[in-house]
Amino acid sequence: MTNFAELNTKKMSSTYTSNLRIEKAATSKLKDVNFENIAFGKTFTDHMFMCDFVNGEWQQPQIMPYQPMTMQPSARVFHYGQAVFEGMKAYKDDDGKVFLFRPEENFKRINKSSARLAMPEFPKDYFFEGLTTLLNLDKDWIKPGVGNSLYIRPFAIAIDPAIAAAPGESYRFMIICAPAKAYYKGTVKVLIAEQFSRSANGGVGYAKAAGNYAAQFYPTNLAQQKGYQQVIWTDADTHTFLEEAGTMNVFFRINDTLITAPTSDRILDGVTRKSLIQLAEDNNIKCEVRPIKVNEIVEASKNGSLKEIFGAGTAAVISPIEGFEYQDTYYELPEIGAHSYSSMLKERMLNIQHNLAEDKHHWRYEIK
Amino acid sequence: MTNFAELNTKKMSSTYTSNLRIEKAATSKLKDVNFENIAFGKTFTDHMFMCDFVNGEWQQPQIMPYQPMTMQPSARVFHYGQAVFEGMKAYKDDDGKVFLFRPEENFKRINKSSARLAMPEFPKDYFFEGLTTLLNLDKDWIKPGVGNSLYIRPFAIAIDPAIAAAPGESYRFMIICAPAKAYYKGTVKVLIAEQFSRSANGGVGYAKAAGNYAAQFYPTNLAQQKGYQQVIWTDADTHTFLEEAGTMNVFFRINDTLITAPTSDRILDGVTRKSLIQLAEDNNIKCEVRPIKVNEIVEASKNGSLKEIFGAGTAAVISPIEGFEYQDTYYELPEIGAHSYSSMLKERMLNIQHNLAEDKHHWRYEIK
Ligand SMILES: Cc1ncc(COP(=O)(O)O)c(C=O)c1O
Ligand SMILES: Cc1ncc(COP(=O)(O)O)c(C=O)c1O
Repeated sequence: MTNFAELNTKKMSSTYTSNLRIEKAATSKLKDVNFENIAFGKTFTDHMFMCDFVNGEWQQPQIMPYQPMTMQPSARVFHYGQAVFEGMKAYKDDDGKVFLFRPEENFKRINKSSARLAMPEFPKDYFFEGLTTLLNLDKDWIKPGVGNSLYIRPFAIAIDPAIAAAPGESYRFMIICAPAKAYYKGTVKVLIAEQFSRSANGGVGYAKAAGNYAAQFYPTNLAQQKGYQQVIWTDADTHTFLEEAGTMNVFFRINDTLITAPTSDRILDGVTRKSLIQLAEDNNIKCEVRPIKVNEIVEASKNGSLKEIFGAGTAAVISPIEGFEYQDTYYELPEIGAHSYSSMLKERMLNIQHNLAEDKHHWRYEIK
Repeated sequence: MTNFAELNTKKMSSTYTSNLRIEKAATSKLKDVNFENIAFGKTFTDHMFMCDFVNGEWQQPQIMPYQPMTMQPSARVFHYGQAVFEGMKAYKDDDGKVFLFRPEENFKRINKSSARLAMPEFPKDYFFEGLTTLLNLDKDWIKPGVGNSLYIRPFAIAIDPAIAAAPGESYRFMIICAPAKAYYKGTVKVLIAEQFSRSANGGVGYAKAAGNYAAQFYPTNLAQQKGYQQVIWTDADTHTFLEEAGTMNVFFRINDTLITAPTSDRILDGVTRKSLIQLAEDNNIKCEVRPIKVNEIVEASKNGSLKEIFGAGTAAVISPIEGFEYQDTYYELPEIGAHSYSSMLKERMLNIQHNLAEDKHHWRYEIK
């Protein structure tokens, strides 16, 4: 875990001299926001971070009032979807201290995504200095307490005005922030994919590439029409192995063992997923990382050994799944309430994130 | 083939009353353009077409001077790649008449793409009225003669300012135009994909979805470093069947038979491809539409029966392939020059497009 002091030292000796330019908003929109009733991802804080890549170099990074921007209709992102993103959260404790959760993982992942999309990697010191300064400016937007957070969206897009189907030369890296409550309300019913797929072997499924998400909207709409909030994707070859949900990795509990699919070039390496695997170990819960056949959970459901399914991701934290449909049959999960692994793990996770529990793996990253 | 008179009649009785608003450019940029030396997709004509979808309806369509536009950083297209496009060309004959080639196919295809990306379909009369009016305004940008054309880029993007991972409610449909010479210069060497893939079964490969293209940039870069301009994609499951290239379908000639892969949910149903299949029939060339194993063309190359490979697409028309690499071996195609099917079919195609030959299938669509 890199801390910011280290980063600053590193920055001095790096070829990047960040020289972050800051333009503060004249007034804050904060007073107009009703935090009790906030829709996910529609309200943004007072400031945003922006840095352009031109002529082979990242230019001066800037923080400025959150505002619209001017784009050419020919900008490559509109035509070829050359865009990647991340999703992180900031949490506040009762003393007003602000924390991120394993931000280094998100930093590494956005650069991994960028590499796969033929986009330039973003410098680490720019990322952490931008993030820290932005969160300090907008920290009043983070409400303390479990259930509240500030959703942080770093993203990068190709902006050159040229529609040849080839990587661009100009890019924009941005960070915008939106106050958030829980993402999915209540429990979730899911449909297991039998026809549509999310990603291919040798494709971009492991990257947070923009186009991966639009590709899921139509099949997810169809699932919703049948009463399912989400789709659990299966492998595109055979549709027999369980992979992940739209924005969550998935865990299955059979008897007292958790199982989750291994990551691959089709599956996103989720920060929540890897943290839960560690937390399971810390709490003496057996967790197997291995391919899982749909039939295995169908059988387990039939014989009563399937106890829980839950999704895991930054936006949703842990999202318990109430039941699933596969081959026109609906399988309901038993109600185990307070004894569930999902509620226990969720509580431990949130307590670490909100500085309410010991952080033995150094996952918290305080914003100073 | 719908003609515009019919469309106009239909429009009258449709629920859409287009009422196209036109704002002309004060001056033309045309005089500043050197048509002899024009890079693909970087220079745009004086006008563009724009129509927004808001509150469940397409709003008044507009033609206006080509110009940048304002976008929210939270616009869904930046985050989730909800964007589709088309590629068409306009040609001018020596009498100054302007023609499109099978534009109905592009119109149908962009709506097919939109449906798969959970985007609203665009009304036919808006599309054709917009296109016709735009081309009439900018017709001086189309130079007569074979080899010249105006590349037309209809596209649609999700513009609502909200980063929940779900389909948007606001969209923008646009048409921009760029004068074009031949897209690929000279012959092309290709690498046959063994590891990376373009699309999955049950995915969005058959749609002109923006994200499909960014996903190809990195593997194509790697191929270029090895001296290959393009990748020929294979099926993601086994990498043993030949599919298509980045922006072209592919034809193989073994002895005197052409072979091209069938379209599927992974392969774009190209207008050039389907026109060439017809032209082959018209010219008594046998053309088989069937799965083709990589090994089949490797064997055919070894025993001398593989005569030609060429790509087919609107941008490149027909692009002869000089050789291919597969499993670290380079296979060179024989030089058959003027006797090739590719040059014969390309000439027939261009002659139809440029009003120099009979158009027995009614593919030309005159802009009046
Ligand atoms: C496809 C996909 N899977 C899983 C996740 C969960 O990853 P993380 O726990 O890092 O948020 C996300 C999003 O965040 C995702 O987009
Ligand atoms: C993936 C892909 N395949 C094939 C083609 C060729 O299609 P068309 O002949 O309609 O231009 C295109 C582009 O135009 C394409 O993007």
